[in-house]
Amino acid sequence: MPDSLRDLAQQLDQFAKERDWQQFHSPKNLASALVVEAGELLEHFQWSTEEQSRALSPEKREAVGAEVADVLLYLIQLAAALGVDPIAAAHAKLRLNELKYPVHEARGNSKKYNEP
Amino acid sequence: MPDSLRDLAQQLDQFAKERDWQQFHSPKNLASALVVEAGELLEHFQWSTEEQSRALSPEKREAVGAEVADVLLYLIQLAAALGVDPIAAAHAKLRLNELKYPVHEARGNSKKYNEP
Amino acid sequence: MPDSLRDLAQQLDQFAKERDWQQFHSPKNLASALVVEAGELLEHFQWSTEEQSRALSPEKREAVGAEVADVLLYLIQLAAALGVDPIAAAHAKLRLNELKYPVHEARGNSKKYNEP
Amino acid sequence: MPDSLRDLAQQLDQFAKERDWQQFHSPKNLASALVVEAGELLEHFQWSTEEQSRALSPEKREAVGAEVADVLLYLIQLAAALGVDPIAAAHAKLRLNELKYPVHEARGNSKKYNEP
Repeated sequence: MPDSLRDLAQQLDQFAKERDWQQFHSPKNLASALVVEAGELLEHFQWSTEEQSRALSPEKREAVGAEVADVLLYLIQLAAALGVDPIAAAHAKLRLNELKYPVHEARGNSKKYNEP
Repeated sequence: MPDSLRDLAQQLDQFAKERDWQQFHSPKNLASALVVEAGELLEHFQWSTEEQSRALSPEKREAVGAEVADVLLYLIQLAAALGVDPIAAAHAKLRLNELKYPVHEARGNSKKYNEP
Repeated sequence: MPDSLRDLAQQLDQFAKERDWQQFHSPKNLASALVVEAGELLEHFQWSTEEQSRALSPEKREAVGAEVADVLLYLIQLAAALGVDPIAAAHAKLRLNELKYPVHEARGNSKKYNEP
Repeated sequence: MPDSLRDLAQQLDQFAKERDWQQFHSPKNLASALVVEAGELLEHFQWSTEEQSRALSPEKREAVGAEVADVLLYLIQLAAALGVDPIAAAHAKLRLNELKYPVHEARGNSKKYNEP
């Protein structure tokens, strides 16, 4: 894990230890909390058009940024609980996607993207 | 954004550009894709006990790690689309949580955590 | 619960009993399964425009309908596990929404809807 | 659709029309709202044990019931927008599940259930 994520992971670990919250932080529970936060993130966009979602006010952008943070915090804790390096896993997945969606086939094609 | 995340963000940006997929990557759509992947992550644990989720087989851990990667990849793309630095936002949120859940009040108390 | 939902609830109860699956069907697990299925439902629309989502092909509509069914099946099982009548709860919620969003204030206003 | 659901569907239709909200109610948006509400439902259980989720206080049960209602209200609106009969789709899915999980193979086996 890179320094910046490791640093967050360590702070989150200490935060949970100080409050005796590790007992609640099973991977099952952290995955639940992650999807709950992802839902709160989506809530900001549920009635917006795509165009509106591309042009947020500064206030809205900050509110959405706070939800992005919540998702990241749980993702880091879940990865740590699982002993998974999220950056390495992301690089591996990106390489797979390059094989799965060759440029010449996937170009401009959301169907390809959507329905592999 | 730290080097490792910025590096992933740049690769993802190039990946989307080469396939002409930026048209699909509105924040609204990326937030949808994020919650869909978070759901796939949770699916691995939906019938498990918490204890089972703490002791995954190597195969299961790899499968779950691939879902962690998918969530991270969309989170990075969403943060980039919004112009949000996810690491800075995560640090800001962590400081807020320290004020919101003082150690002496929050200790061992999931209710406090769950119902602020 | 009305006859049609009660009938489904009874069939689901028997289905679970025959397979000895009630042990897995805690409200916590059923709520997880529900959000997982809701994510699969959303997956069908994640890269679509709103307009495309209003004009599905027959094949796509059937696939989406099967996900609607999955969500409903878990919702019924969750309501039964909780001892909640979902139809009565829905009527109560609808009455609350009528008070919360008076016609003259809410008319054509997604902000009002989105950010109460 | 059975009478009780059809009745709710009609009231929801009128509710949206009076507020000129049909413009926001594309299947894509309704599916987003549905998963957001499913997340709010899961939030009630995210730090609970399964046992705790089986023994809710009356207050908690009412709060959870209100989230069940929200999910149902969006599910009904989505089904109506798609022209899908949710009860018929649920019966069809249940018949498929009976074929997919024969009693003698599935008995007491969450793996079977979880990983078809």
